[in-house]
Amino acid sequence: MIICPTPLPAKELILLGHGSGGKLSADLLRDVFLPAFRSPVLGRLDDQAMLQIGDVRLAFTTDSFVVKPLFFPGGDIGSLAVNGTINDLAMGGAQPLFLSAAFIIEEGFPIGELGRIARSMAAAAEAAGVEIVTGDTKVVEKGKGDGVFVNTTGIGSVAAEIQLSAGQARPGDQILLSGHIGDHGIAILAAREELGFDAPVESDCAALHTLVRDMLDASTAIRCMRDPTRGGLSSTLNEIAVQSKCGVELHESAVPVREAVRGACELLGFDPLYVANEGKLVAIVAADSAPGVLAAMRAHPLGRDSAIIGSVTDRHPGMVTMKTVFGTTRIVDMLTGDQLPRIC
Amino acid sequence: MIICPTPLPAKELILLGHGSGGKLSADLLRDVFLPAFRSPVLGRLDDQAMLQIGDVRLAFTTDSFVVKPLFFPGGDIGSLAVNGTINDLAMGGAQPLFLSAAFIIEEGFPIGELGRIARSMAAAAEAAGVEIVTGDTKVVEKGKGDGVFVNTTGIGSVAAEIQLSAGQARPGDQILLSGHIGDHGIAILAAREELGFDAPVESDCAALHTLVRDMLDASTAIRCMRDPTRGGLSSTLNEIAVQSKCGVELHESAVPVREAVRGACELLGFDPLYVANEGKLVAIVAADSAPGVLAAMRAHPLGRDSAIIGSVTDRHPGMVTMKTVFGTTRIVDMLTGDQLPRIC
Repeated sequence: MIICPTPLPAKELILLGHGSGGKLSADLLRDVFLPAFRSPVLGRLDDQAMLQIGDVRLAFTTDSFVVKPLFFPGGDIGSLAVNGTINDLAMGGAQPLFLSAAFIIEEGFPIGELGRIARSMAAAAEAAGVEIVTGDTKVVEKGKGDGVFVNTTGIGSVAAEIQLSAGQARPGDQILLSGHIGDHGIAILAAREELGFDAPVESDCAALHTLVRDMLDASTAIRCMRDPTRGGLSSTLNEIAVQSKCGVELHESAVPVREAVRGACELLGFDPLYVANEGKLVAIVAADSAPGVLAAMRAHPLGRDSAIIGSVTDRHPGMVTMKTVFGTTRIVDMLTGDQLPRIC
Repeated sequence: MIICPTPLPAKELILLGHGSGGKLSADLLRDVFLPAFRSPVLGRLDDQAMLQIGDVRLAFTTDSFVVKPLFFPGGDIGSLAVNGTINDLAMGGAQPLFLSAAFIIEEGFPIGELGRIARSMAAAAEAAGVEIVTGDTKVVEKGKGDGVFVNTTGIGSVAAEIQLSAGQARPGDQILLSGHIGDHGIAILAAREELGFDAPVESDCAALHTLVRDMLDASTAIRCMRDPTRGGLSSTLNEIAVQSKCGVELHESAVPVREAVRGACELLGFDPLYVANEGKLVAIVAADSAPGVLAAMRAHPLGRDSAIIGSVTDRHPGMVTMKTVFGTTRIVDMLTGDQLPRIC
C-alpha cells in the first residue's frame, strides 16, 4: 500500500520547463523532491553529493540524458553522458573514477546505433581515465520512449582538504569562466533538421576534470566551481547568488560568445546567457588568487579563452545583475520557461 | 565527430525481449556492451560492481525502472526503484548506504503523482536505512516517454572477507530460495487493466539486505546470491550455471509457488519459473552449511517460506534441468522472448 502522509498537491502538470534547469526545475526540487527526501546532503544543492565512507571521501552524482538528436556536431548522447557526469564530479573537486551506464531503449531502435553510442561512451571514458563498471538495459514499447535515454552515475574520490560549495562565495570574489558560452545549445538546435537552421558551431562537450585539477593545483582559494549546462550561465550564477546570499555582477563585454552563436541567438530570439554549455565551467575565486587561477586555466587546452567576467558583491544579495555593453545595468533572472528543451 | 572503429552491425532492431532479462538481454550485453566497454569488472556479470577505493571496498549498481502501471498492489515504481537497487547491492553481500535517484518525466504527468512516487521512495529508503543523496530530473515531450521512468544507482560497503560470485558454485552445493516465486510479475499483470484479469496477489517488492546479513552471519560458505527479477528464477539459475560452468538441478515439487500465481500462470500460459520476483533471493551454499543457512532464512520475516530447491552438479555444465512432479527431467532454458515486458 502507498501511504500519502500529506494531501496531494493541486492537479498541476509537468511542463517541459520543469526539465530546463531553470526556475521551474528549482520549484520542482523545492516543492516535491526536497520535502520527500529530506536529505541534508541533497539539500546542499551542489552538483554532487559528498560522502564519507570509512577513511574515503567520495563524490557521487547522477544524470539522465534525453538529448535530441542523439548525434550532433561535436558529440552524441554517449560522449555527453560520460563527460556530463565526469564534469559534475569534477565541479566538486573530485577525481572521477567509476561510472554506471543505464539505457532505456525504444523498441525498434537500431542495434547498430546503440553500438555506436556504446563505443562513443567507451572512447570518452577511456580518454578521461574512468571505467564504466556496471550497467542496465530496459526496453519500452514503440511510442513510449524516444530512441534511447542514457543515465550515467559517477563516483569520484575527493581529497580531504577540498571544500567547494556555492555557499562559500564572498563579496569581492572574482568570477572566472573557462571559455565561450552557448556552443552546445546552438549546435543541438542546428542539428534539429526541422528548424531548417544551420550554424557552424560544434558542441563544446568535453571532460573538465584535468582543467579542474590544474586550477586546484594553482590555488587553494577557489570557493566553488559549476558547469553551466541546462539553463546556461544565468541559471548557474543565480544558483550561486542564492546559495551564497551574495550578489553577482556580470560584465557583458567580458563574457566570451562566438560570433556564430551570437548570430544564431539573434536569429532565434535567444539570449546566450541562457543557452546550455557542456564543456565550460564557472569558478568563484578569492580576488588575490584570481590572476593565478586564470593563468592556469588559460594554459589548459580547454581553458584557452578563459576570462574574468564579473565579481561577487554585497549589493542585491541573491540576485545576478549585468553591466551591459550600453553602460546600463539589468537583472539577469533564472530561466523561467523551456527555451531549449532536451539539450542534454 | 563520431569515430566508428568497427563496421556497424547488420540493421537489427531492438525488440521488447532485449529488455526481458533473458537470452536476448544476454545477447545484447555480449554483442554490444561488453565489446564496447571492455571492463573486467563489468565482464564479471554480477549484479553489482565491486570497487576498491583506498581502504574501502564498495559495491556499485544501477537500474532503470520502467514498470507499467506505476502503482500496483504491493508497491509502486518508487518503492520498486529503491528496493531493487538495494537488493542488487545486497546480493554482493554489501551494506547498502547511499542511492541516487534520476527521473525522466513525460510532459503532462501530474505533479501530485510525482510527489506520491517521491514519498514512496523516501519511505522505502528510510525503512531500509539508506539515504537518497543526489538526483536529476529530465522532462520529455508528451508521447516521447510514458509517465515517469526512474533510475536508481546505489553504493554499499562490503567487508573484505565477503567474496560472493556466481562463478564460485561447485558440484554438491545446495540451492536455496527465500520464498514463493512469481508474485511480482503476476501482480503487475493483474494491475494492467487492459488484460481484464484479476488475481489476489501482491508484489513481493521488498529490501532483502537484512535477510542477507542474517544469512552471512549464519555461514561463511555461501558461494553466491542473486535476486531472480526479470527473466525469473530460470534466467537467474541459467546465469549461475553458465558462469560456474556447472549444472543446476531443480526439483519442481520443492519450488514454492502460491496457488493464485499458479492459477494465473495456467490461465495466461506462463511458466512461474520465468515470472519476475522483486523480494526473493537464490543462494548457492555448500551442502554442509545449507541447513544452517536455511534456518537463518526461515527465522527472517522475508524468508519464512524458504526452501532448498535443488543442487549444483557436474552433469550438463552450463545448463539447468528440472525433475518434474511427473518424475521426468526437462531442460529449463533462459527466457527467449518477451513474456512480460516492463515488469520492473
